[in-house]
Amino acid sequence: MDKISQPKGTRDFGPAQMAKRSLIIDSIKKIFQRYGFQPLETPAMENLSTLQGKYGDEGDQLLFKILNSGDFLKNVNKQHLEAHNWKLITGDIAEKGLRYDLTVPFARYVVMNRHEITFPFKRYQIQPVWRADRPQRGRYREFYQCDADVVGTDSLVCEAEIILMIKDSFGVLGITDYSIKINHRGVLSAVAELLAASGKESSLFVAIDKLDKIGEEKVKEELIERGFESSSLPLLFEILTFHGNNQSKVEFLTQKFAASEKGKKGLTELTQVLELVKNFGADLAHVEFDISLARGLSYYTGCIFEVKINNVSVGSVGGGGRYDNLTAVFDSKEKSSGVGFSFGIDRLYDALEELNLFPPDAAASSTLLVAYLDNESFSYGLKIIRHLREQGIACEIYPDLTKVKKQMEYADRKKIPFVIVIGSDEVKSGLLSLKNMKTGEQHKLTHEQILDIVKK
Amino acid sequence: MDKISQPKGTRDFGPAQMAKRSLIIDSIKKIFQRYGFQPLETPAMENLSTLQGKYGDEGDQLLFKILNSGDFLKNVNKQHLEAHNWKLITGDIAEKGLRYDLTVPFARYVVMNRHEITFPFKRYQIQPVWRADRPQRGRYREFYQCDADVVGTDSLVCEAEIILMIKDSFGVLGITDYSIKINHRGVLSAVAELLAASGKESSLFVAIDKLDKIGEEKVKEELIERGFESSSLPLLFEILTFHGNNQSKVEFLTQKFAASEKGKKGLTELTQVLELVKNFGADLAHVEFDISLARGLSYYTGCIFEVKINNVSVGSVGGGGRYDNLTAVFDSKEKSSGVGFSFGIDRLYDALEELNLFPPDAAASSTLLVAYLDNESFSYGLKIIRHLREQGIACEIYPDLTKVKKQMEYADRKKIPFVIVIGSDEVKSGLLSLKNMKTGEQHKLTHEQILDIVKK
Repeated sequence: MDKISQPKGTRDFGPAQMAKRSLIIDSIKKIFQRYGFQPLETPAMENLSTLQGKYGDEGDQLLFKILNSGDFLKNVNKQHLEAHNWKLITGDIAEKGLRYDLTVPFARYVVMNRHEITFPFKRYQIQPVWRADRPQRGRYREFYQCDADVVGTDSLVCEAEIILMIKDSFGVLGITDYSIKINHRGVLSAVAELLAASGKESSLFVAIDKLDKIGEEKVKEELIERGFESSSLPLLFEILTFHGNNQSKVEFLTQKFAASEKGKKGLTELTQVLELVKNFGADLAHVEFDISLARGLSYYTGCIFEVKINNVSVGSVGGGGRYDNLTAVFDSKEKSSGVGFSFGIDRLYDALEELNLFPPDAAASSTLLVAYLDNESFSYGLKIIRHLREQGIACEIYPDLTKVKKQMEYADRKKIPFVIVIGSDEVKSGLLSLKNMKTGEQHKLTHEQILDIVKK
Repeated sequence: MDKISQPKGTRDFGPAQMAKRSLIIDSIKKIFQRYGFQPLETPAMENLSTLQGKYGDEGDQLLFKILNSGDFLKNVNKQHLEAHNWKLITGDIAEKGLRYDLTVPFARYVVMNRHEITFPFKRYQIQPVWRADRPQRGRYREFYQCDADVVGTDSLVCEAEIILMIKDSFGVLGITDYSIKINHRGVLSAVAELLAASGKESSLFVAIDKLDKIGEEKVKEELIERGFESSSLPLLFEILTFHGNNQSKVEFLTQKFAASEKGKKGLTELTQVLELVKNFGADLAHVEFDISLARGLSYYTGCIFEVKINNVSVGSVGGGGRYDNLTAVFDSKEKSSGVGFSFGIDRLYDALEELNLFPPDAAASSTLLVAYLDNESFSYGLKIIRHLREQGIACEIYPDLTKVKKQMEYADRKKIPFVIVIGSDEVKSGLLSLKNMKTGEQHKLTHEQILDIVKK
C-alpha cells in the first residue's frame, strides 16, 4: 500500500488544534461583528478570468488551476498541444482556479451585487486560500485569511476602527506586547519626490519593505541596482531611521514635506486617525507611526497598517490599508474606495502557542464522562447523561461495558476533567461519586451538586 | 468587459444568508459537542490516489482535479498525448483533487493518526465538498456537509445518540413535523434471502431505494430487468408495504425471518436501539422503522438512517448508518467499525426557509446605529459607540457627516433595529434620543437605560 498522506503544504486540524483555532477565529469574528462588520463567504473556485492578472506574474503562476470536467482536450489548440506548450494550453484545459486571497472575490462580489448592497458596506470574511508556493516552515499551500473591509466611504473613522479592532482582538487573546505600525502612502510618495524618484515609487516601496529583514546596507545595494542615485540615499535613510515618538515624527516630516501636497495630506490624515482613536476614548499605546513601513501591494493609496507581536519568531500577524478603488480591476464604473485589514490566523496561532497563551483546557473535549460497572448502572447513566446535556453540559458515556480502569484511561487521554462512576450503590442511593481528574479528589454528591460543579 | 460571475453551480453567501447558515451550523455544532463529538477539519485538496476508486465510476468522473503546477506536460505519456486520450493523460497532469465528501478524508485521517487517536473516536466535521455534477435547482458543485461519526466501537448507544442528536437539532431549529427513518442492512439481507436473491443484494437495495420516488410499478419493472423472478415480487412488496407501528413491524418480520440469522440479528439490534433511546429518558416520537429504507451506499452494514422533513419540497435532509470498517479502503490492518450521520446544510436551509422558521432578525446586522448632526455630536457619538461595544453590543456610527435622513435610511436598509440621534442638545444634557426602527417610538434616555434596552 502507498504511503497515505495529505498533499504537500496542507494540514489536517485535529480536535486539539481545532479548539485553539476556533478560539482565535471566534474571538475575532465576535469583535468584527461588534464593529458592525457582516459576514461574507465566496466559493473556493473562481473563474480564472476573475483571478488572473490580479496578483502579478508571480501570483498567476501560484494559482491552483482546476482541470475542466470531461474531455478537457476537446477545445485545445492542436499546434500548442503538439509543441508541448503547456503555458499556452493551460487556458484551454482549465477555466477555474482556487481562490488566492479574499480581496479579489470580495471585489467580484461587490461588482456583482452593487445595486443591492447598502454602502458603506462593512464585510468580514474568514476562509481558506490556496497558493502553489513551495511549502516551508510557516508557509502552507492552504491557509486561512481573516479579512475585514469597509467600502464606499473615505472616512478615516474606518482606519481608527481598524486600530481599535486590533487592540480589542489582542486584548481578548491576551497578547500584550505588540506594535500596530501605521504609515501613509502619501508619506512614501513624498519621500520618493524628495529623492527625485517619483517614477520609481514601487521599486522604492519594495526595497524599503525589506529594511526590517535584510538591513540598511542590503537595501542600499538594492536601491542602487534599481537605478537610484547613491547621492540621494543619505536623505532617504535620515528619514527612514528617524527616531522619536509619533508627534515628533510628524513634526520632523512636516518640515521635510513643506513643498509636497501628497506628503502634507498623508501627515494630516495620519494625525486625524490618531486623534479619532483618542476621540473614541481609547489610548494610543502600541500604535506607532513607522516611516519605513511600505507594504508591497500597489493598490494601497492611503494609510497602511502592519501588526507585529514582539518577542516571537512569527513577526507580522496582519496588515492592511486604504485603497482608492477596490473594483477597478473589474472595470466597474462605480468608484469603490475603502480600507481593509487582514489577520493571518496561522501566524496568530503560532504566536499564541509560543507565548503559551492558549488556556490549558482548550481541547474541545467533553466536560464529563459517565463510567459504570454493570448494565444496570449503564441504564442509570444514560439518564444522567441526558439530564446533563439538557443543561448544556458536553458529556459522554463510555459506549462499551468494560473495566472502569479502561473507562478512566479514556477520560484521561481525552483530557475530560470530570468522571462520574456508577455502581449499584449509586443507583440505589442516587448519590453519585464525582472524580476531579486533575486533583484526584472524589466526592459523593447529588445530581444538582454535580451540575453546579461542572457548570463552572 | 466580460460578464463577471461565480463559476456555475457555486454561490456567494452574503450577510443575510450567512446569518441563517450560521444559525443552522452553530446549533448543530453545539449539539454535536454536547454529545462528546470533537471537531476535525481536513484540507480541501486530497491526493487523487486517496480519492479515486472510493465513490464508484460515476464518483471518479465527478471529482474536480487540480492541474499540477509548473510544466504539467513534463511527465505526460507522449503517445497518449498525441492520441488526444484525455482519460489516460489525466493521471499524468493532475495529482490532486478536491474533497468529494467528508468520509474518505476522515478515514485517511484515522489511518494516518491511528496511534495517537483515543478510540472510540467521536468526530464531527462541517466543511464544503465539491462535485462536478450538472448544476440544477438544489444541486450545487460546492456544498456543505455536516458529519458526525464514532469509530472504534460496535455499541448501539451510538445509534441511539444519533437519533437523540437529530431530535435535539430539530428541537433547537423549531422543526416539528419530521420522520427519522431507521432500518438495518441485516433486515434487507434477510429480505434478499427470502427472494433467493442473495447475490444480487446491491441491485435490490438500489431499486428499493427508489420506491419513494418512482413508485411500486416502476420498481417492479426495474427488478425484473435486473433479473429478479417476477414470482418473488409479491412477497417483496408484501414486506415493503406492510403497515403498522414499529413493534408490529418487528413482530411481522420476526415470523418471516425465522430461518435467517442476519434477519434476526438486524431486528434485535433495531429493537435494542429503540430501547436505548427510551433508556435515555427520551421518547420515540418521529422514529419510524421503515423496511423500505435502503440507502444506496454499499459500505453500510448495520443500522441505516434517513431524516425527512414533512410537507416541504426538499425531502431528505440527512442520513447515515453503521459500517464495519471505515478504513478498509486504505487497507488498514486495524478494523475500524463505526457509525455516522450527515446533515445536508443546504437542504436544511431550504426547509427552514420554506417553513418560515428563521427568526426575522437573523441578519447579522448591528443592533444600533449612532446618527449625528455635526462634528461635535460625532465626537460624542464615538464615545457612546465604544462604551456600547465594551458591553458587547454590535453597533456602528455612520462614517461620513451627512443628513440624518440618509443615516436613517442606512439603518433601515441594513435592518438595524435601534438608532440614537445626537445633536447639541444631547451632548449638553447627556440624555440620548433612542429610536426603535420597527415601532417608530422615540424616547430620551440615559446611557444605562439605552444599554438595558438594546441588550435584550
